[in-house]
This record gives sequence, C-alpha cells and structure tokens, in this order.
Amino acid sequence: MPEPSQASPPVVRVGVLGCGNVGAALVDLVTSGADELARRAGVRLEIAHVAVHNLAKPRGGEVPAGLLTHDAHAVATSRDVDVLVELIGGVEPARTLVLDALGSGKPVVTANKELLANCGAELYAAAAKAGRELLFEAAVAGGIPLVRALRTSLAGERLRRLTGVVNGTTNYVLTRMSEDGVSYGEALQDAQRLGYAERDPSADVEGHDASAKAAILASIAFDAEVVAGDVYREGIESVEPGDIEFAHRLGYEVKLLAVAERFLDGSVCVRVHPAMVPSEHPLAGVRGPFNAVFVEGEAVGELMLYGRGAGGRPSASAVLGDLLVAARSLAGGPVWFPPRRRVEIRPIDDLETQYYLALDVLDRPGVLASVAAVFGDHGVSIRSMEQVGLGEEARIVFITHRAREADVQASVAGLRGVDAVKRVGQVLRVIGAES
Amino acid sequence: MPEPSQASPPVVRVGVLGCGNVGAALVDLVTSGADELARRAGVRLEIAHVAVHNLAKPRGGEVPAGLLTHDAHAVATSRDVDVLVELIGGVEPARTLVLDALGSGKPVVTANKELLANCGAELYAAAAKAGRELLFEAAVAGGIPLVRALRTSLAGERLRRLTGVVNGTTNYVLTRMSEDGVSYGEALQDAQRLGYAERDPSADVEGHDASAKAAILASIAFDAEVVAGDVYREGIESVEPGDIEFAHRLGYEVKLLAVAERFLDGSVCVRVHPAMVPSEHPLAGVRGPFNAVFVEGEAVGELMLYGRGAGGRPSASAVLGDLLVAARSLAGGPVWFPPRRRVEIRPIDDLETQYYLALDVLDRPGVLASVAAVFGDHGVSIRSMEQVGLGEEARIVFITHRAREADVQASVAGLRGVDAVKRVGQVLRVIGAES
Repeated sequence: MPEPSQASPPVVRVGVLGCGNVGAALVDLVTSGADELARRAGVRLEIAHVAVHNLAKPRGGEVPAGLLTHDAHAVATSRDVDVLVELIGGVEPARTLVLDALGSGKPVVTANKELLANCGAELYAAAAKAGRELLFEAAVAGGIPLVRALRTSLAGERLRRLTGVVNGTTNYVLTRMSEDGVSYGEALQDAQRLGYAERDPSADVEGHDASAKAAILASIAFDAEVVAGDVYREGIESVEPGDIEFAHRLGYEVKLLAVAERFLDGSVCVRVHPAMVPSEHPLAGVRGPFNAVFVEGEAVGELMLYGRGAGGRPSASAVLGDLLVAARSLAGGPVWFPPRRRVEIRPIDDLETQYYLALDVLDRPGVLASVAAVFGDHGVSIRSMEQVGLGEEARIVFITHRAREADVQASVAGLRGVDAVKRVGQVLRVIGAES
Repeated sequence: MPEPSQASPPVVRVGVLGCGNVGAALVDLVTSGADELARRAGVRLEIAHVAVHNLAKPRGGEVPAGLLTHDAHAVATSRDVDVLVELIGGVEPARTLVLDALGSGKPVVTANKELLANCGAELYAAAAKAGRELLFEAAVAGGIPLVRALRTSLAGERLRRLTGVVNGTTNYVLTRMSEDGVSYGEALQDAQRLGYAERDPSADVEGHDASAKAAILASIAFDAEVVAGDVYREGIESVEPGDIEFAHRLGYEVKLLAVAERFLDGSVCVRVHPAMVPSEHPLAGVRGPFNAVFVEGEAVGELMLYGRGAGGRPSASAVLGDLLVAARSLAGGPVWFPPRRRVEIRPIDDLETQYYLALDVLDRPGVLASVAAVFGDHGVSIRSMEQVGLGEEARIVFITHRAREADVQASVAGLRGVDAVKRVGQVLRVIGAES
C-alpha cells in the first residue's frame, strides 16, 4: 500500500471480481463518493481493476473501460491490489480466487452466499492463517447490517434462535397471495415481470437460496460447521390461496422462514419452510421484497433487523461498508473517528411535513369557512378534514398537505382568534406519504 | 496486559464504574460466561474492579464484594485495568473519569447517553488522540446493534434520515393508550407500577431522554456536531385519547419519534415530538417497551433495527459486545474467527413446534372422530379445528399443540388411509405461542 502523505489519507486499491448489478453499483458508489468516503473513513478507495467474464458486454457509464480485465487470477494476486472484492457468485472459480487473494495477503470482501454456505470453514481457516479479514455482510440479507452485528455487537450473546424472511422473491409472491388473493402462479409471473424473480425461479421458490443463507447464519451465530446440505428445505410451490385465507382467519400470515436454532445440548436445527406467523409478530409485517431476521438471545431478548435483502445498490452498500472496514484495518488499526463538522441546525420553523390538527368548535354555519380561511391565509393546504359530534361537542380534525412548520404555527395562532373555535388541541406532525 | 500463554487466550482486565442494573448484569454475563466468551472471542475477560458510590448497598449474588471499591478515579487510571466500562450516567464525574482513562491509554466502553449527547466531540477527540477505542453501543436503543452499524456497515452510505422510537417508557404509555383506550395518566401509572417509568417520569415523558439519543444518532450518522440542546423537543403529556382515536380512524398510530434528518445543503434538523405514523409503516408496529430506528440511505434504501431499548440485561449485552471488540483490539487486531465446532445437526423429525394441517373430507357423520383418532394414536394433540363448507366441498383445518414432527408426519400418513379423507393438503409449521 502506498504511504500516506501528510495532507491526504492513505490510498487503498481495490480489485473487483465480477461486474453485475452489485459490482457496477459498487464501482459507482466508490468513484462518485470518493472524496466524501475519504473524509468519513480516513482512507481513499481506488478501484484498481475489475475482472469480468465478457469484456465486450456494455456496462453503462459507471465502469471505466480502462479498469476492465479478463484475468481474474491476476487481479486476485496482483501487487497493486490491496483488498479484493469477490462478486462472481457460485463456488468455483470464486473459491480458488478468494484463497489465492488471502494467500497473497489481501483481505477479502465477498457477497457470495453459495461459497460461504459450502466452503465457509475452509475460507475462515485460510483467513485466520493469513491474518487477513474475510468480510461478507452482503451475503445474507443484502443491505441489512446483520452479519457484523452477529460477529461483533452480539459476540457476547448466547443466541438461541434466528428466524428470517431472507428471500425477497418468495416473500413478494406470498405477500401478493396474501394481500391480493392471487394464485401462486399469477404472483410468480408478476414477480418475474417486476424483476423480483428469475426466469427459472427454482433457486428461490424451492428454498435453495434461503437454505444457503440459513447455513451461513447458523455458522456465525453458533460457531458451528453448518453447510447448505445440512439445512432441511421445503419451498413455497404447494402453498395455496386457501391456506392463506385460513391463516388470516386464525390470525396468521404465511411466510417462507429460514430458522437456525440451538438447543441446550448444543445440537442445532436449521430449516427452511413456509410457516404460519402470528399477525402481531414483527416478521408478519415484512412485506414484498423486504427481508428481516428476528434474533432471540438470552440477555438481549428479541431483536429484528429489517431492510432490502437484495438489489444492486443495497448489496453494494453492504460491500462498501465491509470494504471501508478492511481498508481502515490495513491503514492502521480500528480506532478511527471521522472528523466532526459544525453544521447548520435548522430551526423547527423551517420543517416541512404534513400536520394533524384537532379543533373543538361551536357547531354553527360558517365555522368551517372561517377556519379554512385562516389556513389559506398562511398558505397551508388541507388534505382531509373530518367533523365529529354536534353542537357544543363538535370537533374537527384536519390533516394538511406538506406545509411549513412556521405557517402551521401561525395558523394555530390565527385559529385561536376565531370566535367559534373553543380550543386548539394537539398539533401532530405526520410522517409517511408526503414527508 | 499479561502475555498470553500458548494454551490459553490473553486476559483482558476490565474496570467497571457504576453497578446498577446494567453493571450488575454485565458482571454476571462476564463471570458466568467466562469460558464460552474466551472460546468465542479469543480473549478472556476478567472483572478487576467495580467502583460504586455506596459500598454498603446490597448487590445480589452476581457481584463479589471483593471487587467493589469506592475509588472510581483509581479504577479509571489503574495499571491493572486494561479496558474501562463507564456506567455511572450523567455528565460529571463520568466525563472526567472517561478522559482520565483514555489519557492513561485505556479503551473505554460507555452506555452514557447524557455524556455523549453533551460532550461527544470532546470525548471522540480525546479517544482519537489516545489512539484508543471509545465504544457506546448501549447508549442509544439499548441492546439494538445500531451504533456499530452506523459507524461501520453503513460507513459508506449517504444517510438521509433516521426516525426512531427510542424511549420505551413513552412507547409503553402510547401503546396502552392506543390498544386499551386508557388515559395518559392511567397508562403512566401502569408504566410506573411495571418499572417501565421512573417515579419522576419527566426525563422520559418530556422527551429529554429521546433528545439525548437523537443528538447522538445525528452526530454519528452525519459526522456532525450536534448536542442535546440542538434538538427541538416536545413530550407526550398533551396527547389525548381522542387524538389517538382519530389517528386510528385515519389509519395512523401516534408515536414519540426522534428524527435526525440531513438536507442537500448539509444542514440538519434534529427533533423529538409525538407524530402520526401510518399503520403500514414498520415503526407503527413497535409496541410497548420496544424500540426501533428506521434508517433511510441513498444506496441501502430503508432499514429498520428493532429490539429492547432498555433494561439491565439487553443493555449489558450491548456493553459486552463493545467490551469484546475493545478487548480483541488490545489482544492483537481485528482479525479473529472463532473456532468452528462440529455440532449435531438435528433431523427435522425431532422438531417440536405447532402445526397447521388442512384436510379435504367427505362431510358425513363420524369423519371428525376418525380423523381425531389418527392424531390421538400418534400423540398429537389438537388445539383448534374449524370446518368450512359442506358435503363434497368440506375442508377441515387443524392447529395442533406443540408436537413432534415425526408424529405429525405419521399422522399425515395415517390420515391418507382414512376413507372419508379425500386429500391431505398443506402442512405448515406455526411459530409463536408454543414454539
């Protein structure tokens, strides 16, 4: 690694293997955000080489052609690469390339679930022998910061069980079946049309993808040798709309779950199958292509981590986090505090959001007109209103369109001056659609 | 730090300041799990000293009296302490003690939100100067692994907004008001009875606690100097049952939110106030004393981290995770892979859970009796059943009590031999109450 100058942070050169969705998004994040990343992380990342199978394939504007090469082995072992990012997928040649990189002293970041689910123990041993990091946040649940949490923040925790919705394709299909009452086939076709499912969906719908992730989760949660083949597996093909109807009637949702469980005798059970999840359980609300993992530990109790489990940019974000950790480690140890900046703190008056407002009013003709005039005078536009009760007991509640706090507060002051307004109640900011 | 022998992992000696709920739970976790922790983390933690205000106060069986001392300063600077854990709370004397510990070369783990929200920049600068870690996972959202995620996995992410339910007391009160229709006063009394609220609840219900956490979150998410005093604050005292009724009618829940937001011009807005949250938003489902933080970033999209935001053991779990990271760092760098163990993989036949089972049957007298007999013969006990339709179209669905997979599968095989059973449909495992 080149020596840092006094003025600028050390440069860490990155070799990337594979340039699909995740690779292209990663190169874009690293190059477009270089200065910001250097300031935040105290290291400057430079993409040195990107190895691809097909040099002729168009890659969009993000990946400069001069970085591309066909020779993955040369990138994995090159002297001018400090950290290797493996995004090829599958077991070989990824396994050999990762071992070569570790053997030549490079930390490795990978998003490759098949590789880790089948050869994890071999790779960890190689990384430990080399004294180099092997980081794989993106391999399970994409952008969700789960793997590092299990390996660090929860390192002192006796974990009992991890229960995850870890496959976005099947969760999209089951969500459509649950919410729109469509058949499995129809939901799958929609998923394919939207790019949530492959043309050959078997890896997802038969539970193979989820099984690989379950094996990795069990391995890191329980320090156990668990490979994909150890995982009991059922897919979602046989789930019928009638089952989902009954589930609703009984207060459940149907989800494809990956479960890794440890018993008091130290044995583990790792399984993937559709299951009934109580509606009030946090996993029941994980909809569409989202993922979540529910963690049960002896001291920490119940945790859930939720987010986008797939997709180029969410996964690239996780790879980038790993890359910065590996780069920091190369650049001189784990102690790093990004410089704090003085920033402008916006006063609440400048906030723009939607508002809820409750008024107690005298129920007589013209009240709404005078109230609406006050809002209008201050440029606050009403999205919906509702009146409840009659006479002395009448209450009107409003939800505004996006408005400025200062204008809403001025409206409140104005409303206090309206004769028919007996009381201005709670003003609540509204998050969601227009925020 | 003593040198490790060949056979055993290096010992890292821990000084603890303060021994309330979190401190006592931490000492218990460290001492009761010492061997397991040493195996997992590759370092052996030893509690060297615990400084307390009142030596005479009973501390339960977890904290050996021989560890206790009155002299916090001596612990913070002692040569036989490798890592300091600060659990006193408040600004002084915690601030001075933490600075002294960093100045004497010790990494520091703290759960002290007031300290970080008011003196964060000073402490980070001192840690950077000392080249020692300052870790504070437990200071925001207790056991939820949020702080490390923001500082590492999401280090490459341009974060736009963090929206959190970060105060368990107020969330318990609002949940009771929402679900049971009780008044603010009644809900608060229940919270006090259950230990979710202090006798003087003002720090929670007026939003001070949440404001400190919001300031810390804004600081680490945006690398910004934000102190508690920069946070706009409203409490929940004026929320009325009527507001919550309207919220429900309009499709919302009322939550006390801590929001840290960054705008394109680099300015930030940090605020704590009750807000209307759409029912389908993941934060709307955060009930009772639970916490969650919803994170929006440019590449990663939407994330949520959910769990227990307070309590001795969840917070101690987060402190322990930090402690192991600091100890690993002292013991020789960040590259550590716990040894993988071969474990017994339990076959699915041994699984015990509840089951859902759907049967298409001929609707004639005695069918249920013959079906029930099959379950009974295999030791499977039925918790609920429901029949829908009549005649040729009849379907019966069952949910079992906790049963063994092998017995359920044997029942399925047996049911296929019952004349009146036309088809055995989906078998779904049920998670929740009995699992």
